[in-house]
Amino acid sequence: MNYLEKRILEDGIVEPGNVLKVDSFLNHQIDPIVMEEVVSEFIDYFGDRRITKIITIEASGIAPAIMLAAKLKVPMLFAKKTEPSTLKNDDRYETFVHSYTKDVTSKVIVSKKYIDKEDSVLIIDDFLANGQAVMGLVDIVQQAKAEVAGVGICIEKSFQPGHQQIKDAGIDLYSICRIESLKNGKVTFVEKE
Amino acid sequence: MNYLEKRILEDGIVEPGNVLKVDSFLNHQIDPIVMEEVVSEFIDYFGDRRITKIITIEASGIAPAIMLAAKLKVPMLFAKKTEPSTLKNDDRYETFVHSYTKDVTSKVIVSKKYIDKEDSVLIIDDFLANGQAVMGLVDIVQQAKAEVAGVGICIEKSFQPGHQQIKDAGIDLYSICRIESLKNGKVTFVEKE
Repeated sequence: MNYLEKRILEDGIVEPGNVLKVDSFLNHQIDPIVMEEVVSEFIDYFGDRRITKIITIEASGIAPAIMLAAKLKVPMLFAKKTEPSTLKNDDRYETFVHSYTKDVTSKVIVSKKYIDKEDSVLIIDDFLANGQAVMGLVDIVQQAKAEVAGVGICIEKSFQPGHQQIKDAGIDLYSICRIESLKNGKVTFVEKE
Repeated sequence: MNYLEKRILEDGIVEPGNVLKVDSFLNHQIDPIVMEEVVSEFIDYFGDRRITKIITIEASGIAPAIMLAAKLKVPMLFAKKTEPSTLKNDDRYETFVHSYTKDVTSKVIVSKKYIDKEDSVLIIDDFLANGQAVMGLVDIVQQAKAEVAGVGICIEKSFQPGHQQIKDAGIDLYSICRIESLKNGKVTFVEKE
């Protein structure tokens, strides 16, 4: 069992509707020890790839993404959910991301200046469930004709469709924690092969 | 001249309306070298204070805040601009923050679980202009009856009212770069004493 799995069992709270609250250490309050362990897991898996840039989506993906970027010594880029007044239309890649939790669809944008076809981009996010955020980032990387180096996720709800969708797209996905079920208020992890 | 000042002169773009775009290294694409220099400046200034927690506001404050939190080995907390469906009303501190750039007022929330009266909280943000975001965070820390250890800012537009407002509230403010003017497309820093 890895460090993040232990913390989920200790401090995660399961709520009705398959909600796993980890806001004491991952996505509201953030424990830097968790971040360091997460970065170390990502380095173990992706460390030998060609990675020129890390991309994530605001807001809770930013912490693991910048900590990993600092370790790999590459820039980090975060996609923005609103339209900054200083970014003009033809200067950016756009995609749409639906959040099932909040039931809103957001336009997500990245300045064209910061990804080009020479880039090999690692996508990082805190959670994977329906795969909307990750597939939106994949779309942006592909619009830029850059390569997707892989997708690194802190916590995956493996019983939701995101995992399969990313695999079906032929993308290398590594999730540090894979949750098989949250039934009866209990966290069960996918058994490791 | 410190590292961040040099990068502003090299890579910052001044646009009409006193806009300084630093999205190539600070608040869209983020250069981890800039973050490490920023953290080192904050440690030099605040390193000997009692700091039990770092607070920022989503999204671009998260990168410097988590990097500093990792160095100080304290948790980082980011205030959220929307209402997450999993956070109930009586569990949170709320305040309102107006963005002059986007001309919107957002409700900003922090779970009550993560600040208490024993905390000494350092407020971190990427930009200070009108002071709305910082004063919102001060309000939240004070609602929790915790102590404000100080305010650390990457770039301050010293010709706007935020600086004076924070000083008038008796709060110790340290801004790594203080911009006196953006007139005629030229960045001028406040002269150091």
